[in-house]
Amino acid sequence: MPTPAPSHTEFDVVAAIRTKRDGGRLDDATIDALIAGYVAGEIPDYQMSALLMAIVWRGLDAAETLRLTQAMVASGDTLDPGTALGRRIVDKHSTGGVGDKVSLALAPIIAACGVPFGKMSGRGLGHTGGTLDKLESIPGFTVELPEERFLAQVQEIGVAIAGQTGDLVPADGLLYALRDVTGTVESIPLIAASIMSKKLASGADAIVLDVKVGSGAFMKHVDDARLLADEMISIGTGAGRDVKVLITDMSRPLGRGIGNALEIREVVELLQGSGPADLEELVFTAAGVLLALSDLGIDEAEGTRRARGVVADGSAYARYRAWVTAQGGDPDAELALAPVAHVVTAPATGLLAELDALTVGLAAARLGAGRRQKGDEVDHAVGILLHANVGDHVEAGAPLLTIYAQSVDAAREAEASVLAATVIDASGSASSTPASVILERRG
Amino acid sequence: MPTPAPSHTEFDVVAAIRTKRDGGRLDDATIDALIAGYVAGEIPDYQMSALLMAIVWRGLDAAETLRLTQAMVASGDTLDPGTALGRRIVDKHSTGGVGDKVSLALAPIIAACGVPFGKMSGRGLGHTGGTLDKLESIPGFTVELPEERFLAQVQEIGVAIAGQTGDLVPADGLLYALRDVTGTVESIPLIAASIMSKKLASGADAIVLDVKVGSGAFMKHVDDARLLADEMISIGTGAGRDVKVLITDMSRPLGRGIGNALEIREVVELLQGSGPADLEELVFTAAGVLLALSDLGIDEAEGTRRARGVVADGSAYARYRAWVTAQGGDPDAELALAPVAHVVTAPATGLLAELDALTVGLAAARLGAGRRQKGDEVDHAVGILLHANVGDHVEAGAPLLTIYAQSVDAAREAEASVLAATVIDASGSASSTPASVILERRG
Repeated sequence: MPTPAPSHTEFDVVAAIRTKRDGGRLDDATIDALIAGYVAGEIPDYQMSALLMAIVWRGLDAAETLRLTQAMVASGDTLDPGTALGRRIVDKHSTGGVGDKVSLALAPIIAACGVPFGKMSGRGLGHTGGTLDKLESIPGFTVELPEERFLAQVQEIGVAIAGQTGDLVPADGLLYALRDVTGTVESIPLIAASIMSKKLASGADAIVLDVKVGSGAFMKHVDDARLLADEMISIGTGAGRDVKVLITDMSRPLGRGIGNALEIREVVELLQGSGPADLEELVFTAAGVLLALSDLGIDEAEGTRRARGVVADGSAYARYRAWVTAQGGDPDAELALAPVAHVVTAPATGLLAELDALTVGLAAARLGAGRRQKGDEVDHAVGILLHANVGDHVEAGAPLLTIYAQSVDAAREAEASVLAATVIDASGSASSTPASVILERRG
Repeated sequence: MPTPAPSHTEFDVVAAIRTKRDGGRLDDATIDALIAGYVAGEIPDYQMSALLMAIVWRGLDAAETLRLTQAMVASGDTLDPGTALGRRIVDKHSTGGVGDKVSLALAPIIAACGVPFGKMSGRGLGHTGGTLDKLESIPGFTVELPEERFLAQVQEIGVAIAGQTGDLVPADGLLYALRDVTGTVESIPLIAASIMSKKLASGADAIVLDVKVGSGAFMKHVDDARLLADEMISIGTGAGRDVKVLITDMSRPLGRGIGNALEIREVVELLQGSGPADLEELVFTAAGVLLALSDLGIDEAEGTRRARGVVADGSAYARYRAWVTAQGGDPDAELALAPVAHVVTAPATGLLAELDALTVGLAAARLGAGRRQKGDEVDHAVGILLHANVGDHVEAGAPLLTIYAQSVDAAREAEASVLAATVIDASGSASSTPASVILERRG
């Protein structure tokens, strides 16, 4: 273990750490120097990680959080698709959940409504799948689009989803990797800055954020979700962007399919007019909010009406097919599922009162649908298909869910863990008005 | 900046960081694995610094602090001079102050009383001088003694002070270097573990700790000094050692000489029976406590009486001369002082009410008596000699202090800063019973 040498940057990193440790504020110049110095390799990881822990402890105020976000944006390239397209750019981001395929359904719907939807997305890590991984379930689909082709595709067919191009927010990648191994992920201002830096750098004028809360989400409590929502709204406002937040339920999976190919299948079903109610509610609400923030000059109710319209008239599904084709995929290809399809039946009759999202997500990840570490291969064919979700009536012996696995043992392991997290209330009955998946709105 | 890779140790470092971050306890096995893994280079600095900041935040309880200390001791060699000498080993440590030459006076006094006093000491950093630096003011004196020669010298003449030999507590050196550059020095359990690990590893059976409090000390408030004292007593008790603490005043310099050669001169004066009152009080009190903890079987009052006796009869000074000679020094050599001797006179008549220890210490360090960074050369010849200290009456125009400097400019700079930190109360008068330098005792 070599003795750490003091940093060679001109400004005093230790003084900045001590200031935050003692509950003080970091001024703009200090924040800029910290981020620039870290990205340049002049501030070592061991100083940054101590600072990050001090931030977990003491927090950042709104002005510090905004400046941090802007310093992170300034660490790399920025995109300006709005100028390239001559349009106001809307974007949508989710903090991640089990069965969350909302962006995949939204993209062709928004495009079919005449608003360009070009989104840079990420890979999944842990128990929540990544949008790129799900798209790669489609044979031939490529998520690697050079920036010009990405913009051209958005211009031509109104929709593109791809991996990040160029050197957007390198500070975020570096800081996230460090936070991940130093117990400093859990800081609301740091999470807000991480999300918003990428949205600002990619040139979104208006952003709809889906902050998920519950066992399957990063935010376990609605209080934290509100704090995160308000931090992100504050950053957006400070940077001159419109931000709207939906706080949504992630105590149970969203929709019916959990796993990459299963989720793409469900997106197609929704676009064909037969998506599950909870997913439809969230997709059409988010679409309304997004369209109201766009340059169409319509309100949210009209936006939701148009979104439902493009699904009903088939134009959203047509746009989906054009999009998949443009990115090299075959929209008619069968999405392969794993060889073992193990049907789990309901152990009792009654109201399905609980189906824990985290347990289902972890079970799907263990089947191979998720990654344990960066770089792990994802198995697109495995997953869990729910035949009922929380709030539904189930009959003893009737199919509750199907597990798609590569082996019977893997399927049985998933069955045991999912059943242990399932509660059927024999005295309960399904409500005729199921609980909304949207818990609150902010901004 | 390379992306940090997760640690390759088998146990989960991130889980340990998160536990402490969330206010939990680290169990014994975790503490052992953290220290062993860090010293082995398996746990990277960036994880340790995040953990250290979490400890600054959440603290360590008594059992965690004891285990940390023991894990640090286990990181290297341990000494057992008690067995080698067939005696009970007493040791003394100070948390550091301006003009603190207590150990240098104590060593020959304790030895003259028949108790072996072999001490491993350190270099100074910042505004407080180091015992080794002070000893090196004596022409020819070497502080580098191999372990066998160190023990032989203690056996033959009863006294030795040297730099650390062997590989004692390597964890402390590594952790301190990391804490110094990550704003994580200020943690009472970490300070207590650092001090006590070295005392335990060097084989002391009984330890007298001088915890200094005031502007010139690391502890600025007596509450913190008490906490540190009690932590160290708790560690000592847990490790089966006797620990007594004196909490002493460091709002003003101790004694009259500040600077390496000036301090050695003052030690000689004390050993010849004419030391300043505050220094004599502390030396004879500490000697009494040390002797009462030794194998002489006497109480503190008798210890102090004997200590005063060996000064009065010249045997302590004789022991000093034998000690200096044994370590290669010439006890008759003139200790050179810097060429510019600038006398500063009192600007007013009255009670010297304040003479800020930190200001005086920093002024002496800037003259060259201290180090800014590890490895800096120390100038033994510079310093500040006080002609009065807090509580004394001073006359306008009479000498207040003499600055020994390498240049007139340096002397003037020191004068300006020291005078700005001096308060003379024209309406005050010197008390016939000056305030004790010993504020409290613990343990």
